Amino acid sequence: MFLSKKASLRGKLEGDVTVLGPSEIGEGSILGIYTVVGYPTYRKIKGISPSLEAYDEVSEGAVIGESSFIRSHSVIYERVRIGKSVQTGHGVLIREDTVIGDGTVVGSHTIVDGRVNIGRNVSIQSGNYIPPESVIGNNVFLAPFVVITNDRYPASRRLLGVHIEDEAVVGANSVLISGIKVGRGAVIGAGAVVTKDVPPDTVVLGVPARPVMSRDAYDRKKEEYERGA
Amino acid sequence: MFLSKKASLRGKLEGDVTVLGPSEIGEGSILGIYTVVGYPTYRKIKGISPSLEAYDEVSEGAVIGESSFIRSHSVIYERVRIGKSVQTGHGVLIREDTVIGDGTVVGSHTIVDGRVNIGRNVSIQSGNYIPPESVIGNNVFLAPFVVITNDRYPASRRLLGVHIEDEAVVGANSVLISGIKVGRGAVIGAGAVVTKDVPPDTVVLGVPARPVMSRDAYDRKKEEYERGA
Amino acid sequence: MFLSKKASLRGKLEGDVTVLGPSEIGEGSILGIYTVVGYPTYRKIKGISPSLEAYDEVSEGAVIGESSFIRSHSVIYERVRIGKSVQTGHGVLIREDTVIGDGTVVGSHTIVDGRVNIGRNVSIQSGNYIPPESVIGNNVFLAPFVVITNDRYPASRRLLGVHIEDEAVVGANSVLISGIKVGRGAVIGAGAVVTKDVPPDTVVLGVPARPVMSRDAYDRKKEEYERGA
Repeated sequence: MFLSKKASLRGKLEGDVTVLGPSEIGEGSILGIYTVVGYPTYRKIKGISPSLEAYDEVSEGAVIGESSFIRSHSVIYERVRIGKSVQTGHGVLIREDTVIGDGTVVGSHTIVDGRVNIGRNVSIQSGNYIPPESVIGNNVFLAPFVVITNDRYPASRRLLGVHIEDEAVVGANSVLISGIKVGRGAVIGAGAVVTKDVPPDTVVLGVPARPVMSRDAYDRKKEEYERGA
Repeated sequence: MFLSKKASLRGKLEGDVTVLGPSEIGEGSILGIYTVVGYPTYRKIKGISPSLEAYDEVSEGAVIGESSFIRSHSVIYERVRIGKSVQTGHGVLIREDTVIGDGTVVGSHTIVDGRVNIGRNVSIQSGNYIPPESVIGNNVFLAPFVVITNDRYPASRRLLGVHIEDEAVVGANSVLISGIKVGRGAVIGAGAVVTKDVPPDTVVLGVPARPVMSRDAYDRKKEEYERGA
Repeated sequence: MFLSKKASLRGKLEGDVTVLGPSEIGEGSILGIYTVVGYPTYRKIKGISPSLEAYDEVSEGAVIGESSFIRSHSVIYERVRIGKSVQTGHGVLIREDTVIGDGTVVGSHTIVDGRVNIGRNVSIQSGNYIPPESVIGNNVFLAPFVVITNDRYPASRRLLGVHIEDEAVVGANSVLISGIKVGRGAVIGAGAVVTKDVPPDTVVLGVPARPVMSRDAYDRKKEEYERGA
């Protein structure tokens, strides 16, 4: 257990937890057992003799809003800003300079690999990989094990993020190639490899992904499905 | 270290371990370091001030049979029932109301996301994702990073599980779409996206997956391969 | 915290760490919080009453070279040999009899599942799965969530590793089928399912993967991309 004297802890701890630097944990929030919050970036660690005390000195802390829940075995880096009523699953990694909006869910084992912007009321299911420079709007749904990339010609010197606009739905185990824009309300089928921009309100499927129907048609099928038809 | 007074601990602990509620750990079983057993569901936690003592009070516990091994950094929720001689890898998450039969293996980093039925002598390799409502028979083999889904039109209000019957083999990084049935002895190739039922003893491949041969033909190729041909 | 008396610890510890057997941690190396180094193989554990003291007695230890960094929540088995200036991400699992060369990076949540040879200056991104018998050369780049397999007809009695030669690039969420050789400088596109050998300096894409261009053509496109064209 290590709780920084610089931290503002208004939430509760499940058990053995590490909170580093001037981290702020909002009222009614919970930190799961074996989690680390405010972990310093490598640039900071390189120059020093490592220990939680030394990390605490260099960490700029993370901010977690009210009524949020960071479950066990997770690591939240410094300069992460998590909103209110955010829930993360177990074993989540959220690296530096990431912003996560109110009401968003981040599923178990998901990696948000730093410098990512995620909106409000986003549902990120388990095992997603979201690299630096990704931008995700509001009310987006990411099914399990979506893999987003940020380099079209690895390993290059240029990172180019994927932008996913509001209300989009991304299917399980799909791959989104660096630099594409997924339009507002677009739907990506499970297992798709998306190599080009997806227009708004368009459903794409396959490898490489191609348009197959409109969002309206998808929503009609969804309604039938929900009725059990 | 937190060991519930309500728990029946006949197994051994590697080190720092958390056991909550009336959990039962069978004779000869091992709990790995940094594991949590009997973790309460969110519904229970919401109403209370979180701490291991408070969780212990509300947890209904988990049952782990004789001679089983839960490896380090794993989380087992309340109302999970794990049989005898079950082995799980490191960093496994098994959520509530899951049943796992005797002799089954659950690979490292795998997520069994609650309300799942898994039979006996199943081999689940590393990094699988198995969502609520999934049903897996006996002697099934799931290769690494299989992703199973439970919603055909996400994010809908209807969950529809995948059923995998006895003796089926599911290839690495394949995706099984919500609601399909994988017949007894069927084989799914690596990387396949399976959108329809797979008939018994049938091998399917591709995106979307299509039949390519019978299980008999597969088994003959397998024998040749095992002979090194 | 458990530090074997048999271990040679010249590096530093972040906090609660377990080091078992005659492990060697080089000068300037760091072990992250909640990591376990020198974890014994199952064969060793089966015969004994488990505890860190008992594990310490049977463990053959792991070797980690100078200036390396094993981040939090990771497990390194006995008989692993990690070189100098190696960095691993959080929640990594590296099983027994694995060799990792100097300057290599192993991304967060990656599983190296034992008996794997990895060269120097390899970049393994997050969430990779690398099974027994895999051989990876020098300067290879593995994008996030690559899945490598080692059994062409699971579940067979014959494991046949994938060989990836120097300078190869493997795209995100691709699957490499057991037994294939990825030639020197070859490039595999994201989401590909690679069922056959890939010739040197050849770019392959798709399911199943097919050649689409030369490495020279790829490198020209990469240069244009890096210039922002």
